Amino acid sequence: MPTANAYAAPSATGDLTLTTIERREVGPHDVHIDIKFAGICHSDIHTVRGDWGPQQYPLAPGHEIAGIVTEVGSDVTKHKVGDRVGVGCMVNSCKECKNCLAGEEQYCLKGNVGTYGSVDRDGTITQGGYSSNVVVNEDFVVNIPEGLDLDVAAPLLCAGITTYSPLHHWGAGPGKKVAVVGLGGLGHMAVKIAHAMGAEVTVLSQSLKKMEDGLALGADHYYATSDPSTFEELGGTFDLIINTVSASLDISAYLQLLSLDGTLVNVGAPPEPLPVNAFALIGARRSFAGSAIGGIRETQEMLNFCAEHGLGAEIEVIPASKINEAYERVLASDVRYRFVIDVSTIG
Amino acid sequence: MPTANAYAAPSATGDLTLTTIERREVGPHDVHIDIKFAGICHSDIHTVRGDWGPQQYPLAPGHEIAGIVTEVGSDVTKHKVGDRVGVGCMVNSCKECKNCLAGEEQYCLKGNVGTYGSVDRDGTITQGGYSSNVVVNEDFVVNIPEGLDLDVAAPLLCAGITTYSPLHHWGAGPGKKVAVVGLGGLGHMAVKIAHAMGAEVTVLSQSLKKMEDGLALGADHYYATSDPSTFEELGGTFDLIINTVSASLDISAYLQLLSLDGTLVNVGAPPEPLPVNAFALIGARRSFAGSAIGGIRETQEMLNFCAEHGLGAEIEVIPASKINEAYERVLASDVRYRFVIDVSTIG
Repeated sequence: MPTANAYAAPSATGDLTLTTIERREVGPHDVHIDIKFAGICHSDIHTVRGDWGPQQYPLAPGHEIAGIVTEVGSDVTKHKVGDRVGVGCMVNSCKECKNCLAGEEQYCLKGNVGTYGSVDRDGTITQGGYSSNVVVNEDFVVNIPEGLDLDVAAPLLCAGITTYSPLHHWGAGPGKKVAVVGLGGLGHMAVKIAHAMGAEVTVLSQSLKKMEDGLALGADHYYATSDPSTFEELGGTFDLIINTVSASLDISAYLQLLSLDGTLVNVGAPPEPLPVNAFALIGARRSFAGSAIGGIRETQEMLNFCAEHGLGAEIEVIPASKINEAYERVLASDVRYRFVIDVSTIG
Repeated sequence: MPTANAYAAPSATGDLTLTTIERREVGPHDVHIDIKFAGICHSDIHTVRGDWGPQQYPLAPGHEIAGIVTEVGSDVTKHKVGDRVGVGCMVNSCKECKNCLAGEEQYCLKGNVGTYGSVDRDGTITQGGYSSNVVVNEDFVVNIPEGLDLDVAAPLLCAGITTYSPLHHWGAGPGKKVAVVGLGGLGHMAVKIAHAMGAEVTVLSQSLKKMEDGLALGADHYYATSDPSTFEELGGTFDLIINTVSASLDISAYLQLLSLDGTLVNVGAPPEPLPVNAFALIGARRSFAGSAIGGIRETQEMLNFCAEHGLGAEIEVIPASKINEAYERVLASDVRYRFVIDVSTIG
C-alpha cells in the first residue's frame, strides 16, 4: 500500500504530529497529486477534536488542497501529469442521484464523501490534505488556472467556493446590496468575490478593528454589530446577507436588515437552533436560507472567476511544525485571513 | 357624518354587539360599497381581543368584504355604481415607496393601512366589514368577476390571496410538489389553488380527520403529522411547503421535508420565535420564508384565476347574531372552512 507523510491528530485531545498514512493505489479513474499547499479551515479543528461526532484516529485533516498531478489512472481524461490542481471538501459522491446529476454533488442524496474522516465508497476512511500526497477520483479534482498561485488558491477550495456559491446562486452583482457578516477566512473571500461580481458590499463585523482591511478587500461600507445603531440605520437595506459566523447570532435582527424579497444565507451552522421571529420574514417576504460549499462544476467556475479577477486568499504561510500553534490562533481569531501549510515542510 | 350599522367589539373581552359606526364622506377617489358578505378570519378574533396590541373600541372587524358599489367619487375611474367588488386586508398605503410602486402595497415601507383598527392617512381609525357599508379608496377595491358568487368570494380577499401569493411567487405549477400544512380557512384555499395551478398537492394535517375533504378539495395525498413516520417517509420531497398554522411547529422537522432548493413559507406568525436548525437549511440549500397577503394587482389576478377555475371558498353562511358563537367555533377549529356573515342581517 502506498503511503504519505502527514500531520495527523492522534486523538480528540492530542496535538497533531508527523506520521505516515496509507493512500490507495492509483485506480483507473484516479489522479495522484503531490500536495504543495493545504489551508487550515476552522472546521478542521472541530472535526479532529470530535466536536461534530466521534472520529477514527490518527486523522489527517485538510480540505483546501493545491498541488501538482504526478500520476493518472489508465482511464483518466480530465487531468494529466504536471497539471496544477485542487481538491476541496469532498472526494466522491454517488454520481447517480438527482442532485449529483444536476452537478450539485455537495447535496448528494446518499451523502458526499468528505475529504477526510469520511467513509469512502470502497469502505476506507479518507485522510486529508495535511500530507505529502493524495489520490482522488478525477471527477473531484479541479484545475487551478495559470495566474493563480497555488498557495493563495488553496483556501479557495473551501472558503472561496462556500461564499462564491451562494453569492452566485442568489444573484450578487451590479445594483445589488450585499452584506457579509464576519470578516474571517470565509468572510474575507465573500467580500472579494461579491465586490468582483459588481455588488455594493457592506461588512458587518463585531467591531471596527478590521475596517481598514475590509475596505482594502473591496467593501464599500463597514459597520460594527456591537453598536445597536447599526441595526437601526441599516433596516431594510440588503438584497443578500451572507452570514459566515457559526456562533449563535440574533438572526431575527439580521433578517430585519433585508429589503423586500431579500435572503440571509447561513454558510456556517451553529450547534444550537437559531430562534427566528416569523414576523421578520413575513414583513417583507424575506428568506432565511443555508448553503453548503458548491458543486464541482461550480468550483471550477469559481476558480476561473478568481483567476480572471486576480483574487486569491489573504494568507499566512506556515511550516507544518506550526500547525498546533496555528490552531490556537484560529480559535482566537488571530489570523488575517487564512493559514496555509507549506507542505514541503512535511516529513 | 354618514354612518353604518355594524357588529363591533365594545372591549377586548366583551361580545360583539350591534352598534353604529361612522364612515367618511365619499371623497373624489373613494368608492362607497354596500357590503353583502363578510368572512370571519381568525385574525379578527386576535385583533379585537387585543392579542396583537391594544385597540380603540368599539371596533368592527372584518377584512374579507364582498359587496356592490353604490356611489363613486368625482375622480374615480376604476369602478362604477353597480360593480361587484371586494376589499381585503388593507385600504390604503403611501403609494410612493419602492414597494408600493412595485405593486407590493402589502409591504409598504411606511406601513399599509389595515382595513380595521388602523390609523388611516386622514388620522381616523378604520372600521371593518362586519357592517352595512364601507368607503374605500378606489385603488384598494378589486373587481369580483362574474361567475364568482359574492358569498364564496368574500374569503378570497384574505384566505385566497394569502395563499395564492406565495404559491405564485414560488412557482407552484405542473411538475412541482407542494405541501400545505393545516387544513383550515387558509389551508383549504391553498389546496384548491395549488391544485388548479397544476401542482401535485399534499396536505399535512395533525390527524386524518379531514382527509376525505382534503382529497375532494384537490389534494393528491394526505398525511397525519401526529404520525412520526410521516416525517421519515416524506424527507426531501417537496419543492414548496405553505405553512398556514400559526401555532409553534417544529419548523426544522418540516424543513427536512423539502428537496434541494425547496422553500417553506409561513403565512401565519406564531408569537414565539421558531427555533431553526441551520443544518436543515444548509443540507439542501433550503429556505424558510414568510409572506403577507398580496398586492392589489395580484389580488385582482387571484380573483380572475379563481373565477376562471371555478374556485370559491367552502363556507358556512351565518346571520350576524351568530358571530360570537362562530368565534368560539373558529377557536375550536369547528368550521369547514370559513364562516361568512350575511350582512343583510346586520341592523
